Amino acid sequence: MTENRTRPRARSGGRSARHTLRTLRDFTMLPGLTNALPLCEVMDGAQVEAIDSASMDILENVGVMFRDPIALADWKAVGAKVVGEIVYLDRDLVRDLIATIPADFTYSARNPANNVRLGGPHSIFVPMTGAPYLRDLEDVRRNPTLDDLAMFHKLSHMMPALHSSAHHIVEPYDHPISQRHLRITYSSMKHSDKTFMGMTTSPKNAEDVIEMCAILFGEDFIEQNPVTTGNCNGNSPLVWDETMLGAMRAFCKRNQPVLCSPFVLGGANTPASVPATVAQLNAEALSALAYTQVIRRGCPAIYGHYLSTVSMKSGAPMAGTPEISLMNFMIGQMARFYGVPWRTSNTLGGAKTFDAQAGYESATTLSSVMHAGANYIWHSAGWNEAGMHCSVAKFMVDAEQCAMAYKMAQGPQWNGFDQALDAVSDVGPGGHYLGHPHTLENFQSAYFMPELFDNNSIEQWQAEGAKDITQRALDLAKKLLAEYQEPKLDEAKDEALSDYISRREREIPQADALNQEY
Amino acid sequence: MTENRTRPRARSGGRSARHTLRTLRDFTMLPGLTNALPLCEVMDGAQVEAIDSASMDILENVGVMFRDPIALADWKAVGAKVVGEIVYLDRDLVRDLIATIPADFTYSARNPANNVRLGGPHSIFVPMTGAPYLRDLEDVRRNPTLDDLAMFHKLSHMMPALHSSAHHIVEPYDHPISQRHLRITYSSMKHSDKTFMGMTTSPKNAEDVIEMCAILFGEDFIEQNPVTTGNCNGNSPLVWDETMLGAMRAFCKRNQPVLCSPFVLGGANTPASVPATVAQLNAEALSALAYTQVIRRGCPAIYGHYLSTVSMKSGAPMAGTPEISLMNFMIGQMARFYGVPWRTSNTLGGAKTFDAQAGYESATTLSSVMHAGANYIWHSAGWNEAGMHCSVAKFMVDAEQCAMAYKMAQGPQWNGFDQALDAVSDVGPGGHYLGHPHTLENFQSAYFMPELFDNNSIEQWQAEGAKDITQRALDLAKKLLAEYQEPKLDEAKDEALSDYISRREREIPQADALNQEY
Repeated sequence: MTENRTRPRARSGGRSARHTLRTLRDFTMLPGLTNALPLCEVMDGAQVEAIDSASMDILENVGVMFRDPIALADWKAVGAKVVGEIVYLDRDLVRDLIATIPADFTYSARNPANNVRLGGPHSIFVPMTGAPYLRDLEDVRRNPTLDDLAMFHKLSHMMPALHSSAHHIVEPYDHPISQRHLRITYSSMKHSDKTFMGMTTSPKNAEDVIEMCAILFGEDFIEQNPVTTGNCNGNSPLVWDETMLGAMRAFCKRNQPVLCSPFVLGGANTPASVPATVAQLNAEALSALAYTQVIRRGCPAIYGHYLSTVSMKSGAPMAGTPEISLMNFMIGQMARFYGVPWRTSNTLGGAKTFDAQAGYESATTLSSVMHAGANYIWHSAGWNEAGMHCSVAKFMVDAEQCAMAYKMAQGPQWNGFDQALDAVSDVGPGGHYLGHPHTLENFQSAYFMPELFDNNSIEQWQAEGAKDITQRALDLAKKLLAEYQEPKLDEAKDEALSDYISRREREIPQADALNQEY
Repeated sequence: MTENRTRPRARSGGRSARHTLRTLRDFTMLPGLTNALPLCEVMDGAQVEAIDSASMDILENVGVMFRDPIALADWKAVGAKVVGEIVYLDRDLVRDLIATIPADFTYSARNPANNVRLGGPHSIFVPMTGAPYLRDLEDVRRNPTLDDLAMFHKLSHMMPALHSSAHHIVEPYDHPISQRHLRITYSSMKHSDKTFMGMTTSPKNAEDVIEMCAILFGEDFIEQNPVTTGNCNGNSPLVWDETMLGAMRAFCKRNQPVLCSPFVLGGANTPASVPATVAQLNAEALSALAYTQVIRRGCPAIYGHYLSTVSMKSGAPMAGTPEISLMNFMIGQMARFYGVPWRTSNTLGGAKTFDAQAGYESATTLSSVMHAGANYIWHSAGWNEAGMHCSVAKFMVDAEQCAMAYKMAQGPQWNGFDQALDAVSDVGPGGHYLGHPHTLENFQSAYFMPELFDNNSIEQWQAEGAKDITQRALDLAKKLLAEYQEPKLDEAKDEALSDYISRREREIPQADALNQEY
């Protein structure tokens, strides 16, 4: 991750370059990615329209269940046919509603240098969230605490390719569940000045998040500017529940975007067919996207999904499979067809340890989401064991992999092409480039050098202690945490946030029934 | 890898399906891949022409060193300017020569069912070769023997996504180096009836390979049909040596294709610039491709490369870096611009064990070569430790990954779309698909189920012995080897091959100086 950040101080060659590489480390966030790759569009125009048409047929004829009286009333008010809890959405109504979703927008971070644009070619990497376990700095699997969460927020802050500190990367078990969202949000805000996510574990929790955002950014500011992101999972097939819809309202009313995420286990809650699964998922996403505009016209919203396929041998969700890649390519096309930014999941996988399986699953997924042109690239660092744990080691490696994918997605850099060709003439047949001035000037920007891959000989690797990638990554995490510098919150705002949390913690019972459902 | 091969015997659900999955295993080779993905073309037409023009400038003005008197005489004979060992190639001559390289052709295997087409969208996966060590069935790293090589040829034969048994997957140290090529070739021919590679370690060794091919397929047959593949590495920058050129002649004269493979260590033997590296590599490949047509007009030939970038921290070759992906995309465009099939390397990587690094490197490379549209996808199974060892465990996992990439590259399958949509109506909001007849009929073809990924809960994984992916893959390898059935050679041909080997082993001194250079 030192790529393109440091320059050799002198042209005296390897030793000097190595010294420079060791001593400088730049934690500055990479700007939001502008993906320059030609995207992998596996459907032609007629196939895109076939999916659209199938999804609209589903919305009109099968309908979507909204298990929420307020949403049902809202739908009736805009003229949808509602029978019991099933809403039948006319395609014209859906198209009219989603038309006001912004094609792209900018997240404001509390450090404006870390603002990031989302939509079209503009993409961001966001760490994983929601793990009930972590594998810690000693690779021990255990329940996390608020300190562990803070650690992940710090690492998110320091890894340049991560554009967000997310929210509950791990579940802090040392704090009452009903009040946890307050401490999680505060931790995201405090330990990083990047954008972050907001809890949607209940409508009231979501309102707390938005209130805290209003304190941090100003009431009026958030009315105009997205500052956080909520996630609302659907229950596939074709169901949205009260908790998610209530949280969605809390966000959308205040102009904050949510990910409208059907939760797809291909083959279990969708048909055993890739195109039909995409058609169902697309119908589900459209129904929620449309509802965001019923709540507030023009509010930003994000086409989302959690996507796995299910092993019929075990019933377990799988990751890194060919169909997940294909569905990502297809969903990207659908989101672009509607002109809506879209979210996918990145480093999903089911490995129990940070082994080769984890590497294959994560890299396959990362590659496919880059070629799919995903915008909000969630779960980009740490995910393992089907999301049951966040691994510190994997978090570090994934974050570096994101930096590598970032560079790939920028495409080849043509600047200096002629000078580089001059070097070819200069060196000539049978020569070498290692000491050439052009090489010394350009090697750091030309070729990414992953810090966490070991490419030395086995003899050197053994001489250095035969450290596996888990150990190397944990060593780096410890080193970074020792160097961490907190991007201090404004004192008055910090105090106001603490006052808010104290007040709400007095108000919220520690065993509040509503929040227990989380 | 059981995907799409077995069908449940009854609709009675999970237990029956699981039983079927356990009892049937189909080793039939997947047909050669026809890649249906829209390829990742990162250059526009003007940029392709800029590379072409830069390469032609290099060929005309910098020249290419052919360290081989016969090649220099051949070049003079076709009108090239030759100064010392440097050949200056006029762009018109180059274009004229490469114009007769077939855009695609078919490899004949001794089992015609395993014939495979190469070029255009037609691609094949070929295992790694050349490892001086293996990690064996117990994951012990040691020097290999002829028995180990036979084991890899057997596994190549049995893994459906591998289209070739290659040649010296590992170096058999228990046989004299000067005679090794004979036993390697025989092992490739004997243990698998897929296509295979031919040794190019010296011109005479290459002639032996072709003679053995003539015995196996018939003298006249190979005049008309490619049956094997040689590899000729260039010494970048811009040098071809006598050993490689002599081996090339042995193959091309008999109408057998070679991979014209510049050996690129980006930044060390090419400029610190992605486009300029591609321009140099392209010039090198073109010079060798052109020479194949000087040897024999119309002979099939393959645009090749070995491609890594070099860490300026250690001097070691790296794999899975963003620039390698980008260069693959660009080289694919250049090969298609010239209408020549092209070879890349697949699962390169520098990990010392089969750890997460190996997984990330391999999967990143596999994804990028699929999106690049590579034809001859070499080193597709087993490569680790920068090629210093072939890992049995990784061989198995890589081969399964190739099957997954194969399915991805076929694109979404639209057959049965309407029936699958009927299932959506049938199941409706809040239902599930697991017991639905459509699911039972289609799940095996719809969703790939990787056998070597464990997606179970940690509790179940622990109950089953907490086997890591290395152990699972080694268990599978042992199981397959126990089930191996040799595809018997025709007895008369087998005898003729053995006679040829015996005669040549009498003729070739065990410490022949020429062969020692290998």
